[in-house]
Amino acid sequence: MSGCPFASRRGLLGAAVGLAGGLAGSIGGARLARADAVSPGKTNEQIVPFHGPHQAGIATPMQAHTYFAAFDIIAEQRAQVAALMRAWTDAAARMTQGLSLGAATPDAPPPDSGDMLGLPPARLTLTFGFGPTLFSKDNVDRFGLASQRPAAFVDLPRFAGDQLDPARIGGDLSVQACADDAQTAMHAVRQLMRLADGVAAIRWVQAGFVAGTQSEETPRNLMGFKDGSSNVAAGDPTAMERHVWVGDEGGTWMRGGSYLVARPIRIALEHWDRMKLAFQEQTIGRHKVSGAPLGTSDEFGPLNLDATDEDGNPIVAENAHVRLAAPETNDGAQILRRGYSYDNGVAMIAERWPPWRHALELDAGLLFICYQRDPRTGFIKIFDRMSKFDMLNQFTTPIGGGLFACPGGVTNGRYLAQNLFESAAS
Amino acid sequence: MSGCPFASRRGLLGAAVGLAGGLAGSIGGARLARADAVSPGKTNEQIVPFHGPHQAGIATPMQAHTYFAAFDIIAEQRAQVAALMRAWTDAAARMTQGLSLGAATPDAPPPDSGDMLGLPPARLTLTFGFGPTLFSKDNVDRFGLASQRPAAFVDLPRFAGDQLDPARIGGDLSVQACADDAQTAMHAVRQLMRLADGVAAIRWVQAGFVAGTQSEETPRNLMGFKDGSSNVAAGDPTAMERHVWVGDEGGTWMRGGSYLVARPIRIALEHWDRMKLAFQEQTIGRHKVSGAPLGTSDEFGPLNLDATDEDGNPIVAENAHVRLAAPETNDGAQILRRGYSYDNGVAMIAERWPPWRHALELDAGLLFICYQRDPRTGFIKIFDRMSKFDMLNQFTTPIGGGLFACPGGVTNGRYLAQNLFESAAS
Repeated sequence: MSGCPFASRRGLLGAAVGLAGGLAGSIGGARLARADAVSPGKTNEQIVPFHGPHQAGIATPMQAHTYFAAFDIIAEQRAQVAALMRAWTDAAARMTQGLSLGAATPDAPPPDSGDMLGLPPARLTLTFGFGPTLFSKDNVDRFGLASQRPAAFVDLPRFAGDQLDPARIGGDLSVQACADDAQTAMHAVRQLMRLADGVAAIRWVQAGFVAGTQSEETPRNLMGFKDGSSNVAAGDPTAMERHVWVGDEGGTWMRGGSYLVARPIRIALEHWDRMKLAFQEQTIGRHKVSGAPLGTSDEFGPLNLDATDEDGNPIVAENAHVRLAAPETNDGAQILRRGYSYDNGVAMIAERWPPWRHALELDAGLLFICYQRDPRTGFIKIFDRMSKFDMLNQFTTPIGGGLFACPGGVTNGRYLAQNLFESAAS
Repeated sequence: MSGCPFASRRGLLGAAVGLAGGLAGSIGGARLARADAVSPGKTNEQIVPFHGPHQAGIATPMQAHTYFAAFDIIAEQRAQVAALMRAWTDAAARMTQGLSLGAATPDAPPPDSGDMLGLPPARLTLTFGFGPTLFSKDNVDRFGLASQRPAAFVDLPRFAGDQLDPARIGGDLSVQACADDAQTAMHAVRQLMRLADGVAAIRWVQAGFVAGTQSEETPRNLMGFKDGSSNVAAGDPTAMERHVWVGDEGGTWMRGGSYLVARPIRIALEHWDRMKLAFQEQTIGRHKVSGAPLGTSDEFGPLNLDATDEDGNPIVAENAHVRLAAPETNDGAQILRRGYSYDNGVAMIAERWPPWRHALELDAGLLFICYQRDPRTGFIKIFDRMSKFDMLNQFTTPIGGGLFACPGGVTNGRYLAQNLFESAAS
């Protein structure tokens, strides 16, 4: 998001029309150009600017859908990775404006799968990140980048309760595609996969959704509770600088960037649904319908963690989710949460809890996503304690994920993390 | 859809407000009632009437998302199945109006998971069906219903190219949930699963989506082609009576109903994306960008299957998809297609075609859904030939699915297929 979003949007829309017009030289091009342009009647509010001091998709108000993907680099030369970053940057700049990846000619495969032709970009954002293995893998400095790895970019520790599937963790590169339309997000990742052919191979993906992003109410997760009532305010620059955006400490390529934790967390929904309302509310520490802290009625009211009942017992339990997540109990630590619900259908799952079924159950939960300036004092600090004590843990199982460094934003004409890939080899 | 949708909508909205008001007796109820009511500021255009001569979700204009589910009945008594149909009917009538399944009290599990509280129904429809195994399974007339099975309700034959996963076929009961919001559709099926506890167990599910349902353009499938340009017009009662709605021939419980074929069909998207545009268009028989029949420029123009080029070769190839699907080559047979794209992430897949990869590929494709008056002269007739000759088959693999009989619509106060379950045992 740039400092002056309206000017940027107008500028980008102009650029979009220019690009589409430039394809109109041939008959095929003319046809594509019509379908290729931003749909008439749709406002440019549906375009989130790709270029700016920060990558879009972090401070951007949440879209209704995400498609998260992690890739392994299979090429061996740094220049090949840099060329991929150039190609991905150019493709992202086009797709986020609702443009296809180019005009098709009869005797060649179309540059774009074409399933979004004529449709608006639906606030598409593409947010790219790098895994620790880009910098060092099996103690090998694969691309001469090891010296550029910031101190804050640690390996994610193992947490209590982690049941991580090796096929769903890590990755050298990450892409978080978000849009108000599911197919738009999937389409974008599919084109990026194709552009990566021979350089990077898909490792794991997870789609997600959230209801009510257009509503004024805080969206609810699959447990039926409002999620995000007390979050870093993405519109508050001071809070964002303090908790989310990396400053000078990460090297030039990470300035204005952020560290992303993405973890699919399965929720035993059948088990949760059998719990009494009062127990659900004690577990979370909020009322289910209103979202207000337990014992109060205002969703956005303060958490009073010292409040007690007539017997002197805390109203918000010692191991309630909100208490363990609160900045007040974490030395002020805060993260920007941007999670989505996920639904992978049903799967044979042996539950560890009543009713102890081993049956086809909903393979669904939370694709936890958060951004922070320093994971050591952000997610790792907060989740280390939560993973041991949170009452919610009896319903949740982290099953994959990773930590990724998302570089700062891209200036028009440059490519993502260009000064990282063009830095001297260590 | 009733004959006079506006009157029905108004009537249902009144009922909705009445029901919500009726829950306001307790403090918990009052809170729920507020969140429970149809959201202010949203129009009742977002409610699709549940009651009527036909089930909703067939002639209803397509919503953006579906969640399809098939269940096995595990109970042994017909009365238990009938009670489930009563419970599902009542739940469907509530949820399609945007109402939760009831008020929560502290000392009991909430009747509704609550994740849609405060959100509009997003044109939710729930369309129920019965598999052949409800009537006879392993030659046993489990519920005394065998004599009620219509002649048209045959077993789906095996088609050329079928690679059906036994875990993803059939089912005694089916539910097609459709809504303009993914979570709304999933929420509805989740509540139905819970209501079925002890009577029916989930067997297979498949979520799906389609972009551009709010656009004036025909939606495109993942192959980038417009899908549905020549389909039965759901707004044409004569065509619907002829091709979609069952008449007196199916017994009273199927009058006004329709037969549903639902088949997940994987598409080798990485393979397809490498094909030249001209080959893609010859395979389908339409132009990719415009959707017009090959050699023409109007998407909705007639298919001229007799047109030839200067050498006398047919412009639409003999084994092009549109030729084999066309009513002209199928003795006038037509089906109402209502399919969705699906995306199950990535999976290790060995491709049968170039580039012959065995790698993580997109586990995605088409959740083919169609409705018809008689499957013998509808899907089975059309697909038997297509499964043998369609050029598209080199990119597509049917991997599951089934045939379901969807009874006629439900009158207020009655339950789904009540006259089937209350018929005399055979």
